Amino acid sequence: MLMPIMKTLEAQKIVLASSSPRRKEILEKIGLKFDIIKSNFEENLNKVDFSSPLEYVKETAKQKTLEVARRIYSKPVSPPDLIIGADTIVTLDGDIIEKPSSVEHACQMLSRYSNRTHTVITGVILVTPNKNAIQESSETGIDCKFKLHTFHDTTEVVMPDLPTNVIQHYVESGEPMDKAGGYGIQGLGCTLVESIKGDYFNIMGFPAHKFAIELLKLYSKQN
Amino acid sequence: MLMPIMKTLEAQKIVLASSSPRRKEILEKIGLKFDIIKSNFEENLNKVDFSSPLEYVKETAKQKTLEVARRIYSKPVSPPDLIIGADTIVTLDGDIIEKPSSVEHACQMLSRYSNRTHTVITGVILVTPNKNAIQESSETGIDCKFKLHTFHDTTEVVMPDLPTNVIQHYVESGEPMDKAGGYGIQGLGCTLVESIKGDYFNIMGFPAHKFAIELLKLYSKQN
Repeated sequence: MLMPIMKTLEAQKIVLASSSPRRKEILEKIGLKFDIIKSNFEENLNKVDFSSPLEYVKETAKQKTLEVARRIYSKPVSPPDLIIGADTIVTLDGDIIEKPSSVEHACQMLSRYSNRTHTVITGVILVTPNKNAIQESSETGIDCKFKLHTFHDTTEVVMPDLPTNVIQHYVESGEPMDKAGGYGIQGLGCTLVESIKGDYFNIMGFPAHKFAIELLKLYSKQN
Repeated sequence: MLMPIMKTLEAQKIVLASSSPRRKEILEKIGLKFDIIKSNFEENLNKVDFSSPLEYVKETAKQKTLEVARRIYSKPVSPPDLIIGADTIVTLDGDIIEKPSSVEHACQMLSRYSNRTHTVITGVILVTPNKNAIQESSETGIDCKFKLHTFHDTTEVVMPDLPTNVIQHYVESGEPMDKAGGYGIQGLGCTLVESIKGDYFNIMGFPAHKFAIELLKLYSKQN
């Protein structure tokens, strides 16, 4: 979908504010060129403070991205044209499921998915320069120097009955440990997923289609 | 899902009867080791002879795989433990859509998908030795020396409005030309797909989950 604005994007400075190799892979697939600046935000928001898993993932994505944006915009150099940040969670029965903390935790997560449908939500933040504010006095706070554009996407994932030995073998492979939700649909975990409804790339950690649509909107507004 | 029988599979001789790089990638993702023997079957079955696109793709998959199986089983050496063959088509309004024959054809295909849901079907054939027949007299025909296990999977793909310039730019990238249905969801085409319902890997050309389930069934029967 981005092909008509690809020439514009190629000439821009873009930063991915995430260390996820999956997000890097998806943005490269789309054809973007970008630098990676990892967020130092400690992902420790109190889940009980949020009315829903969606509100939690949106706020975590925002805080992760803001930390990178503030660091960049506090420097006396031209900021990038676009900073992209995101956070992904799995939700089931209203619970928020992130990365497993141990092998046992990964096994527990996967047992919960057995014969059920869970939901993957990614919150995405796009940061662009607030051109008016940059030209204003230096008294303006850093946050006034940029604008946030936020959206999210959800995908449903159906898993079949997952026998205990399948879960154990899978967790032993090591694949679940660095993944939100405790599995990688793009890896060995591909056979664990019976069916999905929504954007596949959202499960990997970044909603490719919606990103393209939102970016097109953003750039048509700017031009 | 295959982890519990992975040791058995690792000790076996497996052949993929397809030259599709996507099928190779998916089987490698699953963890299989295999040789590739391309089918010489000319994919020229007459579409009007079939009662439905499903019947057509099942028969094409069968003929492609049989050509490889007959070639292998006619040699005086031990046949592989498993031959895997497949064929994938897109279907829309009852029509069968395969690889585009030209740039114009690719543009026409993609225009048809605009604001619509189309269906991807993959027919899969698993070939295993018929151990009783092999021990019988040499008068038995080649086809009696093996058994076919067949299944298929379908996935629905929703595309948004695809503007003409998006289609043109995408076709110019060259990506559609070697793909059944004229797009690659795993490549630059990832942003063209709003949503899917079913197995993502089936759209790439091989239904990873259903393959694992059917293989588990087949091996539990054998043991």
